[in-house]
Amino acid sequence: MNDEIRVDPSLTPFFNPQGIALIGASADPNKLGYALARNLVQSNYPGALHFVNPKGGTLLGRKVYTNILEVPEPVDLAILLVPAPSIPSLLRDCGRRGISAAIIGAGGFRETGEAGAALEEECLAIARKYFIRLLGPNCIGIMDTHLPLDATFLPPPPPRPGDVAFISHSGAIMAAVVDWARGQDLGLSHLISLGNQADICETDVLAPLALDAHTRVLTLYLEGVRNGRRFVQEAAKVSRVKPIVALKVGRFASGQRAVASHTGALAGRESAFNAAFWRAGVIRAETSEEMFDWARALAWSPLPKGRAIAILTSAGGPGVTAADALELNGMQLAELKPETVARLKEILPSAASFHNPVDMLATATPEQYAACLNAMLLDEGVHGALVIIPPLPMQTAGAVAKALIPVIYNSDKPVAVTLMGDRLIQEAIEHFRAARIPEYRFPERAASALAILAQRADFLARPAVEPQPLADVEREKVKQLLQPYLEQALALRESVSLPAEITNQILDLYGVPTLAIRLAKTAQEAVQVAEQVGYPVALKVASSAIAHKSDIGGVLLNLPDSEAVAQGFDVILQNVRQAHPTAEVQGVYVQRMVPPGQEVIVGATHDEQFGALVMFGSGGVEVEALQDVNFALAPITDHEIEHLLQTTWAGRKLRGYRNLPPADRLAVIDVLRRIAQLAADFPQIEEIEINPLRVLEQGKGAAAVDVRARLRPL
Amino acid sequence: MNDEIRVDPSLTPFFNPQGIALIGASADPNKLGYALARNLVQSNYPGALHFVNPKGGTLLGRKVYTNILEVPEPVDLAILLVPAPSIPSLLRDCGRRGISAAIIGAGGFRETGEAGAALEEECLAIARKYFIRLLGPNCIGIMDTHLPLDATFLPPPPPRPGDVAFISHSGAIMAAVVDWARGQDLGLSHLISLGNQADICETDVLAPLALDAHTRVLTLYLEGVRNGRRFVQEAAKVSRVKPIVALKVGRFASGQRAVASHTGALAGRESAFNAAFWRAGVIRAETSEEMFDWARALAWSPLPKGRAIAILTSAGGPGVTAADALELNGMQLAELKPETVARLKEILPSAASFHNPVDMLATATPEQYAACLNAMLLDEGVHGALVIIPPLPMQTAGAVAKALIPVIYNSDKPVAVTLMGDRLIQEAIEHFRAARIPEYRFPERAASALAILAQRADFLARPAVEPQPLADVEREKVKQLLQPYLEQALALRESVSLPAEITNQILDLYGVPTLAIRLAKTAQEAVQVAEQVGYPVALKVASSAIAHKSDIGGVLLNLPDSEAVAQGFDVILQNVRQAHPTAEVQGVYVQRMVPPGQEVIVGATHDEQFGALVMFGSGGVEVEALQDVNFALAPITDHEIEHLLQTTWAGRKLRGYRNLPPADRLAVIDVLRRIAQLAADFPQIEEIEINPLRVLEQGKGAAAVDVRARLRPL
Repeated sequence: MNDEIRVDPSLTPFFNPQGIALIGASADPNKLGYALARNLVQSNYPGALHFVNPKGGTLLGRKVYTNILEVPEPVDLAILLVPAPSIPSLLRDCGRRGISAAIIGAGGFRETGEAGAALEEECLAIARKYFIRLLGPNCIGIMDTHLPLDATFLPPPPPRPGDVAFISHSGAIMAAVVDWARGQDLGLSHLISLGNQADICETDVLAPLALDAHTRVLTLYLEGVRNGRRFVQEAAKVSRVKPIVALKVGRFASGQRAVASHTGALAGRESAFNAAFWRAGVIRAETSEEMFDWARALAWSPLPKGRAIAILTSAGGPGVTAADALELNGMQLAELKPETVARLKEILPSAASFHNPVDMLATATPEQYAACLNAMLLDEGVHGALVIIPPLPMQTAGAVAKALIPVIYNSDKPVAVTLMGDRLIQEAIEHFRAARIPEYRFPERAASALAILAQRADFLARPAVEPQPLADVEREKVKQLLQPYLEQALALRESVSLPAEITNQILDLYGVPTLAIRLAKTAQEAVQVAEQVGYPVALKVASSAIAHKSDIGGVLLNLPDSEAVAQGFDVILQNVRQAHPTAEVQGVYVQRMVPPGQEVIVGATHDEQFGALVMFGSGGVEVEALQDVNFALAPITDHEIEHLLQTTWAGRKLRGYRNLPPADRLAVIDVLRRIAQLAADFPQIEEIEINPLRVLEQGKGAAAVDVRARLRPL
Repeated sequence: MNDEIRVDPSLTPFFNPQGIALIGASADPNKLGYALARNLVQSNYPGALHFVNPKGGTLLGRKVYTNILEVPEPVDLAILLVPAPSIPSLLRDCGRRGISAAIIGAGGFRETGEAGAALEEECLAIARKYFIRLLGPNCIGIMDTHLPLDATFLPPPPPRPGDVAFISHSGAIMAAVVDWARGQDLGLSHLISLGNQADICETDVLAPLALDAHTRVLTLYLEGVRNGRRFVQEAAKVSRVKPIVALKVGRFASGQRAVASHTGALAGRESAFNAAFWRAGVIRAETSEEMFDWARALAWSPLPKGRAIAILTSAGGPGVTAADALELNGMQLAELKPETVARLKEILPSAASFHNPVDMLATATPEQYAACLNAMLLDEGVHGALVIIPPLPMQTAGAVAKALIPVIYNSDKPVAVTLMGDRLIQEAIEHFRAARIPEYRFPERAASALAILAQRADFLARPAVEPQPLADVEREKVKQLLQPYLEQALALRESVSLPAEITNQILDLYGVPTLAIRLAKTAQEAVQVAEQVGYPVALKVASSAIAHKSDIGGVLLNLPDSEAVAQGFDVILQNVRQAHPTAEVQGVYVQRMVPPGQEVIVGATHDEQFGALVMFGSGGVEVEALQDVNFALAPITDHEIEHLLQTTWAGRKLRGYRNLPPADRLAVIDVLRRIAQLAADFPQIEEIEINPLRVLEQGKGAAAVDVRARLRPL
């Protein structure tokens, strides 16, 4: 796996610079140029360090060069902390000096409007010309606590060295996280502030961090992604090696466009992000606290082989809270084996609770904590443990921590600790942190961390397969069918609806069964069509001159075979001629008839960021209200199809529910695969939707009852 | 309102003791009896303090009496911290001494099994005999930070005085909260550890805290409630005066009983708690952090007049996060008026964002923070504000806090502050805390606190009405109908199903329209029945001898009036006689026919704790899967009915949705009221369910299509 991850060598100066030049170093302690110089020096960076300022002089005991061209070797990374307008010429100097990487801290670019955007473009053009990679502008810089290097202007000290890298689209959030991490004594490995991303974006830095020896988990504060599919591809590779946890904001900020279908209405930016994160194995956190809570567990804990968790506590209340929280997070309470219970009975007083949650009572000693946890972790039915240390009347939390640590080290199962309180648990916190054992203040947090470990295990158990293209689809014919409508859309410069018969034909060509109505001019043709669409069929005279077709015997239903169809064709024509001797008749319509069945919605749409998306769920008119739908990227893998079916009630009930018989699940899977292929093959399809897709009994297939589609000018 | 809240005077010694005797005071620093003595002394309790221990001597500079009988006046509260077996005789001594209140700290009672439970009963009997009120046993004791009094054995110091009372069923949770509050510098007013609740329970202490001058908010850690209806009654009164926030655990621990209906399957203990909390105005938190986050906002902030919130930030990222979080919590982003935007433009540089969220940029000064917030709070369309203070490159958070505080004081709108970071914001935290302005580390938390203020405002806007009993129900007749089945259930000692016709009759007697089938023996009777049930009706021959009734003309559908019914009766009898001349015929069944309509489920069940509960939601066979139901206590208020209709999709779509026409909402409301009355009138009804209730067009009513009910032996 690892060898698939490739780091662009042009990014090396950001991760392992040989020499750094700070352009804009200042002796004025009120300026950011001083703060950054100070941090570079104080961080104890082992490489060469050069300060540049036209004023010259010295700074922090070092010579200040008046020009970047004067700076001696080695220097491969320039940090430009000067006002925006002077950046282009300085960047040119850097290029001439042979510097291949630059961090632009200054604001005043794209974020300020058109003039700033033009300046940013100019910088990027210069960078391209001189083969300089750019981080920023409008960013706080980078930190590497292990190298060590602090190339930011944040107030010291930097956070302590740790295992978690943090990448941020927001400088303010990064500044806040640095200060917060300091207060929480949370160790971090790398910090990267991306700023305006004129050049380097969130996707670019994933691979270097994946291969960084000190980083065990990547955390991301995202306001979006530059290129959706590239992000998915890169993140999917990286998350096979190291977990990625992302806090994606802007949920409600994304603009809403006009839509014509349920799929369109439900396919917001968030659906696309969730589908993308699912494929890439990116774990989505809802809050910053959750992100770092999870990151610690992911960095430090083995993964569980299942979801059965044992709770060890010395007080009932927190045990119940933990049990609640585990269940809410989709985990289960492990059932302890009789031999485990017997062992616990040897260790604990008789008034204790020997079944999960195991409550040792307030008299619990450090030795009892250790012996009980050991017994529980040895139980094969236990996949992980949640240990709760409430304030103990007779023991210190520190003593309990010291007793537990070797037990947790000896096990290959994850253990999350809840240390309740604050002042009295500081020693215990330090012991657990030093031992890289995740501890939390509240049982709910520990439970949520264990659940994330299980989610990560699920992801790794899923093979990394790419969707396979379908061979039996008529791509060329669909292209021809779409051609005139696409031309119309391009001429109008807006999207156009496809007629239902065209949409039905397209679905036919991609192997999706429909209830298409087809015209037969002879009895023989009628039989041919019926054979194609499947029995039973309905026949209906095709004549615009006749209003009440069934009254005059112009309609026949439920014809079961070819003989009945051939006969029926003649009967209808006879009836019509008798009733309306002069009416013009085009022939007879043939339509497949399907019995009632379960009804679902299958749709596809196109997201600007992530491309084709497919939707599945409960159909009908109440789609938006029921919200029982989920999305996946198209084309789709078998795992993604299973995910859609498992996360929607419409999908789960295909296996049958109470007196609802099982439906043809395989037919649904096939339709999903085909719709996804269609959407991926034709980015011009803005929306396509089957609502409902009627799913018949097992083995009887499914049929698109009602369809709609729109093409966009592309 | 306030005068409705009555405090039992026998509880006074727990809240304002004149003199305290600690029985079991110890000179051994390793004993809890020492720790408690130390806390009593160190807490600076202003009343009389007496130590008792058979060994006598002195302790912490005070005389130790060998017997409670020797202790001089005043003494009205005894704390017993001695082993369980010696409690009864000491309690008797307390009684003889005239002491009227006791805290039993020791464990070894009900929580240890049968012998302990018997000992607890004995203590309670003694207490009753001597008119002693008991707190505990198996509890940590009480703290009052304002009196001040620390009557616990927790390590010092107690938390600092504050506005939030905390009542806990778990001693360990209380110990943890005390230590955690210390670390968070969270002030508390009262702490009450309830222990085994032999006498005093969670409900008893609500009124005293409601009337306590120092307590602004009550927080509860609940593992259940002693008496559901009493809790609701008391909490409903108290929460009109002070907010109650509860963390109720044991969600998944409640035993599941066998059930025969959807209502029964869905009506877990949690549904009952949620219904009870809704009626009582108790705010339910999911985690301890959430409970105290909300408590601070509720204690300190004015309530908003709406849900439109303005965000003020100096960095984009946290602003977006806050906007997301507000929307997720059911709040809205306020739209600023043009004059507000104009004012902001005067204050801020042109590159700032002047629309909500207002981003002042990283150059924001304390003065700009204050002026912008002031302008936003003056905007009539703004109901509250969320201010974000990320780390500022050039300013301290403390300076911003000082500038903001007077603005926040001058407004009657709630403001929640997000101070991002940790070390650099300590001064700002202290300023905001001293000013009683709620501040949080993350925007998500501030947003959630604002949402809770809006929820509290909604509750207070709801008049405190009691459900009114319905006059037009036939209680006595239903009683007679139920009698034989109840006898059967009592004889069998298990619940029994009612036949559908009986259930239909019961519903009829309570005014719930059904599709009851009734037998008519003559044409005249048939007409009478039809007039009663409403047209159109169906007629069907009543004869067990005839299998295929419709084949021989034994069934007539859609008869629109009396004439058609009278004729139809005769026609059916003729047809039957022709086909089966010898068949025995009992008469003709008459049944109302209803057109299609929306279908919902209405059910009622009986919760052990809270009594009768009514359920409403999406019906059909998929009830448990869709989970679109909600519960309320029965009998039900109009507000509760509206709540059920608004919180379920089944309820919302009664007003119509897309091509679904509006249905007879008033008929549903009427049925809910009647089913609730029925369930409240007959606690013997274990479950009753209408699934579906078909709801016709507006003005056309509703009809119970399928019904089921079970009686329990009671």
